[in-house]
Amino acid sequence: MALIECVPNVSEGRRKEVVDALVQAVRRVPGVRLLDHSSDGAHNRSVFTLAGESAPLKHAVLALFEAAVTAIDLRAHSGEHPRLGAVDVVPFIPIEGVTLDECVTLAKETGADVARRFQIPVFLYEEASTNPARKHLEDIRRGEFEGLAAKMSSAGWAPDYGPPAPHPSAGASVIGARMPLIAYNINLATNRLDVAKKIAAAIRYSSGGFRYVKAMGIALEDRGIVQVSMNLTNVSKTPIHRVFDLVRLEATRYGVAVLESEIVGLVPSAALLETATHHLQLDRFEHDQILEERLKKAKAEPR
Amino acid sequence: MALIECVPNVSEGRRKEVVDALVQAVRRVPGVRLLDHSSDGAHNRSVFTLAGESAPLKHAVLALFEAAVTAIDLRAHSGEHPRLGAVDVVPFIPIEGVTLDECVTLAKETGADVARRFQIPVFLYEEASTNPARKHLEDIRRGEFEGLAAKMSSAGWAPDYGPPAPHPSAGASVIGARMPLIAYNINLATNRLDVAKKIAAAIRYSSGGFRYVKAMGIALEDRGIVQVSMNLTNVSKTPIHRVFDLVRLEATRYGVAVLESEIVGLVPSAALLETATHHLQLDRFEHDQILEERLKKAKAEPR
Repeated sequence: MALIECVPNVSEGRRKEVVDALVQAVRRVPGVRLLDHSSDGAHNRSVFTLAGESAPLKHAVLALFEAAVTAIDLRAHSGEHPRLGAVDVVPFIPIEGVTLDECVTLAKETGADVARRFQIPVFLYEEASTNPARKHLEDIRRGEFEGLAAKMSSAGWAPDYGPPAPHPSAGASVIGARMPLIAYNINLATNRLDVAKKIAAAIRYSSGGFRYVKAMGIALEDRGIVQVSMNLTNVSKTPIHRVFDLVRLEATRYGVAVLESEIVGLVPSAALLETATHHLQLDRFEHDQILEERLKKAKAEPR
Repeated sequence: MALIECVPNVSEGRRKEVVDALVQAVRRVPGVRLLDHSSDGAHNRSVFTLAGESAPLKHAVLALFEAAVTAIDLRAHSGEHPRLGAVDVVPFIPIEGVTLDECVTLAKETGADVARRFQIPVFLYEEASTNPARKHLEDIRRGEFEGLAAKMSSAGWAPDYGPPAPHPSAGASVIGARMPLIAYNINLATNRLDVAKKIAAAIRYSSGGFRYVKAMGIALEDRGIVQVSMNLTNVSKTPIHRVFDLVRLEATRYGVAVLESEIVGLVPSAALLETATHHLQLDRFEHDQILEERLKKAKAEPR
């Protein structure tokens, strides 16, 4: 089975009846599971976590667009979070039995369908991007909905699919593929914020650290400790255990111990199994030796 | 869902047509998955790994007995492995959403049914045992099929279920419940067998080590190294990572490094996730944060 995750971000986080309609639209699609959804009033934005195979996921995203385009008008939208469109961002994420390339294909097909059905311009991002200047979400989204018409009329900002100007009420959408992103924090047994900041600088890509790590040092003032707060953007290439071990080593340099670490939200089991096989030096371990995997395989096989 | 594993050992490992008939008998039972089966000619014995919920597993075991009793005659059986009966041993093992006590109940119900339907005496063992002298398989099986009639006529050896004497051709069966047993080996970067033996003695229960560890030191002569070869009999109480860490520490005492470790056969994912959360100091991690668990939960819930 090919298991893909899809995390659409929609520009509505205040009107409960609209969010409910979006939830219902997704839930009606057979073969798709809504794993989670949360709304933020200050951001005026909702995030949906869907899982399924390619075809049902594409249907669910189209159903979500249909409900969102009817109910959301960006001209009357305000919120703290930057946004370009009613359905703002749609990443497809490989989880199991599927490659990142297959998620790129799904992102492109979905983008083309969205543009055709709703006359919404679509920009491809991350791995699906066809243009290095339009790979990162922050570059595409700069100027937001309010600056979109001007931006799209400038050189290099024709959309990948759809009309050359924004949809009047729904703006534009950013659709793409990326690896699972894991929100991972390590708490240090100290209140020295400088130590957390120095460690964050040592391990993050932008200042010379690991390629797939974003990090910053912050204070947890109520607990009197500091935290190295991270996003791990590709744990198959920069695994959790290596990040943890390096943070612990760097902390030792300052005479500081690791208090604990935490994963915020969901994590694919493979990311934790990699930590286990690394620490136990299980050099010849096969995924197939996990009882639950064998069971899944036995279920999938005909009798 | 209550997921139970069942690993019947049958006294036939040479006649392919008999083993095939046993496999077919199990496969015909709805709700039971045959995860694995292997036959050993020298032992003249086959091991089946089944998984499912209580009721279907009991049906599968009864189907296996029916096929085995028809085809196997212990009076004409020889092999290196000790055995008492045609279906020699049947352990039930809790995997997920089920307790060891529920597996004890299942073992007792299955034992009573086997005795009634096939007139085979059944001894309960391990957690299902009702008598400390008959808790361990080796104690029950001592004397083997050939000594069974004499043994059963002596004091303290009336079976838990069934007739007071062996079935003429099928002998007796040992049925019970236990925790998952993990075959776990740690290879040392040395050819010093004395070191492996000293470490094995340090960590095993019988000589003062961890309660749920059996261990011995052996030489892997073709590779010029030695191994601490273990059975971990309850990894929820004596977890893999603690065994690994102590073996590594003890090895250091002799100036020896751990080369690698290996799990032989299947392991429940929880055993490895425990290693990951321990090493990463993930103190507040919930099982529910694993993406695949959330997905399973979403599948189980009504829309």
